[in-house]
Amino acid sequence: MLTYDLSRRGTRPLYVFLYESIRDDIHSGRLSPGEKLPSKRSLADHLNVGVITVANAYAQLENEGYVEAEEKRGFFVLDITGSRTTKRNHVFVAEEPEKEYFADFKANRSGLCHFPTSTWSRYMREALAMPELLKTVPYKGLLILRTAIAEYLAENRGMFVSPYQIIVGAGTEYLYSRLLQLFGRGCTFAVEDPGYQKFAKISDGSGAIWKAVSIDEMGLNVEQLEFSEADVVHVSPANHFPTGIIMPVSRRHELLEWANRARKRYIIEDDYDCEFRYSGKNILPLYAGDTGNKVVYINTFSKSMIPSLRISYMVLPPELLDRYEQTMSFYSCTVSSFEQYALARFISEGHFERHINHLKNYYRKKRSQTLEAIAASPLAGFSRVIERHAGTHFLLEVNTVLTGTEIRRRAQENDISISLVSDYSYTIPEKDCRTLVINYAGVPVYRMSEAVARLAHLFPECAE
Amino acid sequence: MLTYDLSRRGTRPLYVFLYESIRDDIHSGRLSPGEKLPSKRSLADHLNVGVITVANAYAQLENEGYVEAEEKRGFFVLDITGSRTTKRNHVFVAEEPEKEYFADFKANRSGLCHFPTSTWSRYMREALAMPELLKTVPYKGLLILRTAIAEYLAENRGMFVSPYQIIVGAGTEYLYSRLLQLFGRGCTFAVEDPGYQKFAKISDGSGAIWKAVSIDEMGLNVEQLEFSEADVVHVSPANHFPTGIIMPVSRRHELLEWANRARKRYIIEDDYDCEFRYSGKNILPLYAGDTGNKVVYINTFSKSMIPSLRISYMVLPPELLDRYEQTMSFYSCTVSSFEQYALARFISEGHFERHINHLKNYYRKKRSQTLEAIAASPLAGFSRVIERHAGTHFLLEVNTVLTGTEIRRRAQENDISISLVSDYSYTIPEKDCRTLVINYAGVPVYRMSEAVARLAHLFPECAE
Repeated sequence: MLTYDLSRRGTRPLYVFLYESIRDDIHSGRLSPGEKLPSKRSLADHLNVGVITVANAYAQLENEGYVEAEEKRGFFVLDITGSRTTKRNHVFVAEEPEKEYFADFKANRSGLCHFPTSTWSRYMREALAMPELLKTVPYKGLLILRTAIAEYLAENRGMFVSPYQIIVGAGTEYLYSRLLQLFGRGCTFAVEDPGYQKFAKISDGSGAIWKAVSIDEMGLNVEQLEFSEADVVHVSPANHFPTGIIMPVSRRHELLEWANRARKRYIIEDDYDCEFRYSGKNILPLYAGDTGNKVVYINTFSKSMIPSLRISYMVLPPELLDRYEQTMSFYSCTVSSFEQYALARFISEGHFERHINHLKNYYRKKRSQTLEAIAASPLAGFSRVIERHAGTHFLLEVNTVLTGTEIRRRAQENDISISLVSDYSYTIPEKDCRTLVINYAGVPVYRMSEAVARLAHLFPECAE
Repeated sequence: MLTYDLSRRGTRPLYVFLYESIRDDIHSGRLSPGEKLPSKRSLADHLNVGVITVANAYAQLENEGYVEAEEKRGFFVLDITGSRTTKRNHVFVAEEPEKEYFADFKANRSGLCHFPTSTWSRYMREALAMPELLKTVPYKGLLILRTAIAEYLAENRGMFVSPYQIIVGAGTEYLYSRLLQLFGRGCTFAVEDPGYQKFAKISDGSGAIWKAVSIDEMGLNVEQLEFSEADVVHVSPANHFPTGIIMPVSRRHELLEWANRARKRYIIEDDYDCEFRYSGKNILPLYAGDTGNKVVYINTFSKSMIPSLRISYMVLPPELLDRYEQTMSFYSCTVSSFEQYALARFISEGHFERHINHLKNYYRKKRSQTLEAIAASPLAGFSRVIERHAGTHFLLEVNTVLTGTEIRRRAQENDISISLVSDYSYTIPEKDCRTLVINYAGVPVYRMSEAVARLAHLFPECAE
């Protein structure tokens, strides 16, 4: 009888694996046209699976025209060599699991295994006792979470906002979509070049027009911004991605003045990495110094908590808030109440701050370790680190004969994943780019020196 | 010294309440221009709050131009009667908590308090031990959840789909947005009239063109659909909202044929209520009978689990799946891993099916109770129930002299919330509508007979 090693099914459902196995046997000729398949019951017993599993597999085979059911007789293999009149003959390509590199300097993942799971799961259990669970979530998010965020912002970011200004959403990208819609069709957007490109991608998706504006050593070039005729600009003044540039006060003033010169103008401030600053004082957001109600503040908990938690929020200035309330309140909140409640408690009981401090210490050490490994390696002789004591990455400008494309190919071959500044730019061609973005968050501590050694050996200069 | 009853702050943060109280005292004149506010420390001690709370309140007052800080002297009240040069003088309106009615026949909430919280929280705890938590979520959602959904659909909805076709998102509305973008600008959409209006609203939001197509006793009128020149239609064949009409086989064929006549044509099948059918056999989805790969299937767990859980999914046919993978894979998944993992386990361990059976029994009883209460009330004499043994609502056509607008007003006055069929229609004027949509899910069992009695007494016919 048909025998398949079910342990090889991986993550596929049993019936899908069984269906695929039989289908492959029909394709290969191991099962010939006209042959009768075992009865569902006997195959189920033979493979030690449920009858429903076999029934599902057979139904799918029948559905796709591989077999035919004859009443009271069973299932027979059809001839698939001729012109098939199959109905659904599409074969879905299995998703490759994300490739695991020896060292992944690119992935946006957290390296910390010390997430306080017991505290989090306590609040989750508390959440399950809430009567609010049986109601729909208010469209801006649970007030208890927005209140906790407002208090956190007041104490940590010098921002005095009302919880009523805060809108919670499932990830920053989701909030970008809402914002694009809020600003409306007639609006032109500007993004930093190089910069975090998701905003531009999502603008493309929703048909919005955007321009890339270059940055200089002080961050976004405001003269160019003026020249671009954009109405709304997306920036990260506290920690520009990927350069780490902190926008100085003078440039901030210039930018706010730009916004104040026309009613339609606004600034979207993405404060995504603000928690991770290892020296000097905290950089306040633009929002804190905005006297014209021109800044939309946006931040996420995916970076500061764990990547798989999808909670972000934005703070809208009054005029935009009114517009949001009037035109977009029918959009249901995209974050489940459980998680909003748990996060609210986590923040207001001080666990969030403690967790951030933990993470910060962890990343601070990892950063030193990475920088020391580079300084001690041959890389030091022909490269330069560019960084500002913040975030979880830095730039490494390499003085090499290789093109960016070659660097990337060699990295792949050596089981290392890297990205280049050109990946985040609309103007720098990859071949001319020799500046790597080194995100150390996801590389395990015990692999770091070996990872840096491998990195160094990508370059022919290393042998000299 | 300034004394405020902090217990009156409701859900506001302490500092916001304190800020508002002082601001009001400045407006009312209780605090006069030039007056010195108590020091932060002494007010904090007096009110028994943290110094940071007072500091935040003062900072906000200063920020908004109500007080002025003089170095080493303290905070002084400014004269706000003249022309104010305040910076942020916007006062945010507190959100009213959702009004609680004696009987809410409109709210979309679950009446069941028996959600298996201990099972759910066990899976949540399990989820917290997953290494995947430190990675970003795959853009289509966790494979373990998509596999569980595929198996559930095979066993319960006669649908044989690959987990690779399934895309998980935070709510049906979110998936609508993705679909609108997937179909693209040139596409015209059709929606049912009357019908679930969110799809059209979200189309408006994203600038898509849509047409309303009327329904007859067999559901969507396909002739009109053809005439509308729409490319994609949104329907709920298993349980049309709000009429409960089940689309019969002949009409399904017609609809599928319509889709098969042009390459651009697709059907979005919203199977939102499929779990709740109290008699007759399960109605299979259109998807199960679709041989042309023309149906996008979409469903949610908010209705079948609890309203505050934001997890929906869609099944894309091959051609659309390819397009999605090629153009939209950069959109991160909007549902946190915790919840996806917990739900996957909940489904594959059979708890979901048990929970659905629980809910179904509960709603079945509640439905009988509601119908019996109506039959026993004076309403019976001048109204007619229209329903199909499914979902959690039915229609009540009332033979009354009142207009729809009057019915609604009287309901409000009697602390009852109702909706009218005209609320879900683009063509029926409210004043001509005398058909109520009675959603009994959210009305507590012990209030039902009183609720129906109040409903009856809205109508002058009741006294006759």
